Amino acid sequence: MTHVVDKLFEEVAPAAHTPHRKVTIVGVGQVGMACAYSILQQNIASEICLVDVVADKLKGEMMDLQHGLPFVKNCVVKADTDYAITAGSKIIVVTAGARQREGETRLALVQRNVDIFKGIIPQLVKYSPDTVIMVVSNPVDVLTFVTWKLSGLPRQKIFGSGTNLDSARFRFLLGEKLNIAPSSCHGWIIGEHGDSSVAVWSGVNVAGVALHEVQPNIGSEQKDPEHWETQIHKKVIDSAYDIIKLKGYTSWAIGLSVAKIVFGFFANSRNVFALSTNVKGLHGIEEDVYLSLPCVLDSNGITHVVKQNLNEIEVAQLQKSAKGLLEVQNNIVF
Amino acid sequence: MTHVVDKLFEEVAPAAHTPHRKVTIVGVGQVGMACAYSILQQNIASEICLVDVVADKLKGEMMDLQHGLPFVKNCVVKADTDYAITAGSKIIVVTAGARQREGETRLALVQRNVDIFKGIIPQLVKYSPDTVIMVVSNPVDVLTFVTWKLSGLPRQKIFGSGTNLDSARFRFLLGEKLNIAPSSCHGWIIGEHGDSSVAVWSGVNVAGVALHEVQPNIGSEQKDPEHWETQIHKKVIDSAYDIIKLKGYTSWAIGLSVAKIVFGFFANSRNVFALSTNVKGLHGIEEDVYLSLPCVLDSNGITHVVKQNLNEIEVAQLQKSAKGLLEVQNNIVF
Amino acid sequence: MTHVVDKLFEEVAPAAHTPHRKVTIVGVGQVGMACAYSILQQNIASEICLVDVVADKLKGEMMDLQHGLPFVKNCVVKADTDYAITAGSKIIVVTAGARQREGETRLALVQRNVDIFKGIIPQLVKYSPDTVIMVVSNPVDVLTFVTWKLSGLPRQKIFGSGTNLDSARFRFLLGEKLNIAPSSCHGWIIGEHGDSSVAVWSGVNVAGVALHEVQPNIGSEQKDPEHWETQIHKKVIDSAYDIIKLKGYTSWAIGLSVAKIVFGFFANSRNVFALSTNVKGLHGIEEDVYLSLPCVLDSNGITHVVKQNLNEIEVAQLQKSAKGLLEVQNNIVF
Amino acid sequence: MTHVVDKLFEEVAPAAHTPHRKVTIVGVGQVGMACAYSILQQNIASEICLVDVVADKLKGEMMDLQHGLPFVKNCVVKADTDYAITAGSKIIVVTAGARQREGETRLALVQRNVDIFKGIIPQLVKYSPDTVIMVVSNPVDVLTFVTWKLSGLPRQKIFGSGTNLDSARFRFLLGEKLNIAPSSCHGWIIGEHGDSSVAVWSGVNVAGVALHEVQPNIGSEQKDPEHWETQIHKKVIDSAYDIIKLKGYTSWAIGLSVAKIVFGFFANSRNVFALSTNVKGLHGIEEDVYLSLPCVLDSNGITHVVKQNLNEIEVAQLQKSAKGLLEVQNNIVF
Repeated sequence: MTHVVDKLFEEVAPAAHTPHRKVTIVGVGQVGMACAYSILQQNIASEICLVDVVADKLKGEMMDLQHGLPFVKNCVVKADTDYAITAGSKIIVVTAGARQREGETRLALVQRNVDIFKGIIPQLVKYSPDTVIMVVSNPVDVLTFVTWKLSGLPRQKIFGSGTNLDSARFRFLLGEKLNIAPSSCHGWIIGEHGDSSVAVWSGVNVAGVALHEVQPNIGSEQKDPEHWETQIHKKVIDSAYDIIKLKGYTSWAIGLSVAKIVFGFFANSRNVFALSTNVKGLHGIEEDVYLSLPCVLDSNGITHVVKQNLNEIEVAQLQKSAKGLLEVQNNIVF
Repeated sequence: MTHVVDKLFEEVAPAAHTPHRKVTIVGVGQVGMACAYSILQQNIASEICLVDVVADKLKGEMMDLQHGLPFVKNCVVKADTDYAITAGSKIIVVTAGARQREGETRLALVQRNVDIFKGIIPQLVKYSPDTVIMVVSNPVDVLTFVTWKLSGLPRQKIFGSGTNLDSARFRFLLGEKLNIAPSSCHGWIIGEHGDSSVAVWSGVNVAGVALHEVQPNIGSEQKDPEHWETQIHKKVIDSAYDIIKLKGYTSWAIGLSVAKIVFGFFANSRNVFALSTNVKGLHGIEEDVYLSLPCVLDSNGITHVVKQNLNEIEVAQLQKSAKGLLEVQNNIVF
Repeated sequence: MTHVVDKLFEEVAPAAHTPHRKVTIVGVGQVGMACAYSILQQNIASEICLVDVVADKLKGEMMDLQHGLPFVKNCVVKADTDYAITAGSKIIVVTAGARQREGETRLALVQRNVDIFKGIIPQLVKYSPDTVIMVVSNPVDVLTFVTWKLSGLPRQKIFGSGTNLDSARFRFLLGEKLNIAPSSCHGWIIGEHGDSSVAVWSGVNVAGVALHEVQPNIGSEQKDPEHWETQIHKKVIDSAYDIIKLKGYTSWAIGLSVAKIVFGFFANSRNVFALSTNVKGLHGIEEDVYLSLPCVLDSNGITHVVKQNLNEIEVAQLQKSAKGLLEVQNNIVF
Repeated sequence: MTHVVDKLFEEVAPAAHTPHRKVTIVGVGQVGMACAYSILQQNIASEICLVDVVADKLKGEMMDLQHGLPFVKNCVVKADTDYAITAGSKIIVVTAGARQREGETRLALVQRNVDIFKGIIPQLVKYSPDTVIMVVSNPVDVLTFVTWKLSGLPRQKIFGSGTNLDSARFRFLLGEKLNIAPSSCHGWIIGEHGDSSVAVWSGVNVAGVALHEVQPNIGSEQKDPEHWETQIHKKVIDSAYDIIKLKGYTSWAIGLSVAKIVFGFFANSRNVFALSTNVKGLHGIEEDVYLSLPCVLDSNGITHVVKQNLNEIEVAQLQKSAKGLLEVQNNIVF
């Protein structure tokens, strides 16, 4: 019997196999799937590969994405519990990890995630030895360090999604307050992703007009009559807690943040993003600790870090975060 | 005290208020949010308005989308439990509704959703009397009829997302089997969204080459040696069940399907989509029943229906579906 | 005889007529067509309307765009020498105008263009009384003033493409020098579009790090050891001359600049662009003169101007440009 | 002296060099530049490389594109008269070539272009031995054959833009006549790009409804009461002539057509395009001749050709075209 496919086509050459822009997403929870869905519909990758330990959920998510393929320009979507399927990934987004149990210390959580990452990272590097890895799982800074250690890859290849999302939340709130587009509001949140993040008020500007020129004490907790630190940066810090309380988790904004970073990576764009990177040698930090700073990203990974002129208070905050992370790191059992 | 915003800007004229492309999404469950997320990142609307009865969840979803705004080209995202916020919508996507309870008859489910829709549809029409409404909630065909009845709007203004998604699943599976892009596979699923949908095999083609010319019995349950009906159409019907079993619900593909339709609406594109429409007067059906057929959509709603040359079996299936829906409709208490 | 169209379709309602996002482009020279081509393929408008006096060229350009429609998401393309076709435009891009003749004074050129604009602007306003008009024709600042006068429309509705392109050239050159993405380089060129434009070095920054903090004398013609003013801003000024000498005209970058502005207008995005606006009351200028400053644009037009803290030299340059433009304006015969 | 760039950045690793998606465009005339402009703004490539013999024009076009970079997502634009700059291209678009002189025979024109191609093609293959080459220069079919011969590359790697544009024109005109979106009109023009192209009326359909089922004689020159062949296909053939008469050349639609094909190539999409390919062994043609047929394109080039069920008249037309091309080919001096 001649099959329809043989009657319909004359073969000239075999179909191509090499996936030019293959991204793997580890973990198909709410965050992993928001990332996958964004990357799919923004036509960022030519192959999206999903990996998770829960085979049923994994297959369901794969099928649901695949059924959307006729609506997007193009992509291949694959999924498997076996890491062999990730071979040839150019970039890997790690969203897997345990959530904090009630009564569990933060350190205990980290150790549990380290144990999980021990089963993930070496497998990923085995099948894609030249890959770049972006860690999204929380606590992102320490898990990026852990990934770097477990991977054996050079410093530029491993980074965390860090405060790229915090910076976006900051810009949204600035835009709302100023009644202009968030993309016309420029401001950077750096440091630890979470409670101790630092808003670099000196650099906040609209069309190059620094807000601190307009209002010299802007961002000061005591002296700013309009309380921007409390109304904007404090709200950024509270955002994740608020949303988790309201809907149970955060997903959409982190998905868009990750998609933007992956786009920049594949496009080799050399855009600047606030990413969690090894800050050894910067701002007086002398150990291998991961914190977010403005980083230049291209298809090699993070090639440059922007050296900001931080004031004393900001440097102190960064160093305090670094110290705290270091303590956690020193207690990790690899 | 002069505020930063006053020091920063010289006002020339007040900011614009009219949202040119406002879409409202009713229901912020998995489907509603996948729709909102797709519409947001594909830059389809200039305002997305979310409505739901669960205030907390609603606020959390709104905030999560808003934090992603710096990553997309532009949009305003609003949410409220009060329908006043929907005023001026050009198109409304209804994803709200009850799910089937264990042991509940289909008719009982429909009646429960009718009662829910009684609280939704008149409110929507009150605030946006010229709107188009797309129903996504299931069972989509009967709920589109219900929406039409409750809205008092003309026939072209009310339609259901129907088999646009079934057709996408069909094309994905065709593409997989033929190893070509799904967007180069042309095939239409019509009729009832669900178990009794009809695959119009006569029109399935690649580059204008009808597969039934290549394999005359393609799609026949008995005579097709390659069993395309079983392997492709049957799989389409099973898809929703399979995914619900695997991940609990379907979301991504329906989100992309709805986004595509909303894009066509705002763009006034006059593209042809498989949508649930009032089929009275078509294929021998003489009552006001909603089934999916290929429809021309523009910013007026559905302006034309494509008259397909269906064979006897296909017409019989459509009429049987119509009869079944009519029975359900006749038992609805408005 | 029943036509195919009648046999193929069942009409439910007439096709929609209202073009929601109609843009008219006046002048189908290299600039006008680059604008049209960009707006078409970026899916910015739902209708593009071309107007010119040269009927043949106009028809050829319309057909060439129309044949590309199957490759873009959607648009309607129309063209006519009669302004009636522009009715209902939301925004109009004016690229028409005479080029400088050999030996002709600048003032004589302006007067010739004023005479041309007298035949264009009132016609446009007649058919689209609520439109926004963006002037692209050169000299853009004085012709924007002329358009404002001829149109009788309020100040916010009329603006020129101004130094939005100069700013883009500036960012490209910054990006090239710093080896990062131009979209991560922030810098603004303001004032007169052309030789006397002002680079606001105080606001030039990467990730909020002002370059003048890194190199205090950056941009100074005398004191900057790296000569950024000469190597970057001077090159921006020379760009148009260089390209005209090399290829005869400029088109691609201005087309992309205009498309971005039109996108922001239709999206009601409230982004900040460097646009030529009536600067009366700003930076000590007390007359109705048009110069570029950072402006907030939404679907009402320019609603706010960003008040920059310019230094004395920059203010003096702006005032000098204003004075020169005023002289030209005073000699115009309306 | 420490430079700004060194003060601003901490280097982690060198910037990436490998251009993942590099496209070279040979010839910066109206067609070549429309292709480049489309590829740039649709974010299709990560590097666009322009090559031409006219150094001034080339530099002007490069600068004009570069100044638009801040308005697009990302790309690198380079240009040189030296082919070394093309090294590492994944796909090359050849638009160079001589235009017909008055009184010149078609064969003489072909020979002149062969002589030009002798200076181009081996250089391209030298620097990018694994490249795919798409020929756009006219007469496209014979020049694609010439390119194949000169390149020494396998059959799948060399193709011509062929009747992809003719098919788009056909769909636009169908859409206009049926008052629906051109992307919902399916129809294919095959064969020689130009006067002897073949409209495959049997496959023309809307939503899978073949127009010949609605109107059995559609497309017949004698028997069709609505004269679709004359009104639609004849107009397609006349299009190029008409536009050249009206505006001097065609550019926009071919630019969009080429961009779509290049997108499909980089995305490895396996979409079906009407491309000029070696038809030996198909439709009774037994020689190495290039004509357009529906082809499956991926990043290997053309891997499959769709076998259409053509009627006798259509096959005869193809064979006649093949014979004519063969005569031209036999007279070429390599």
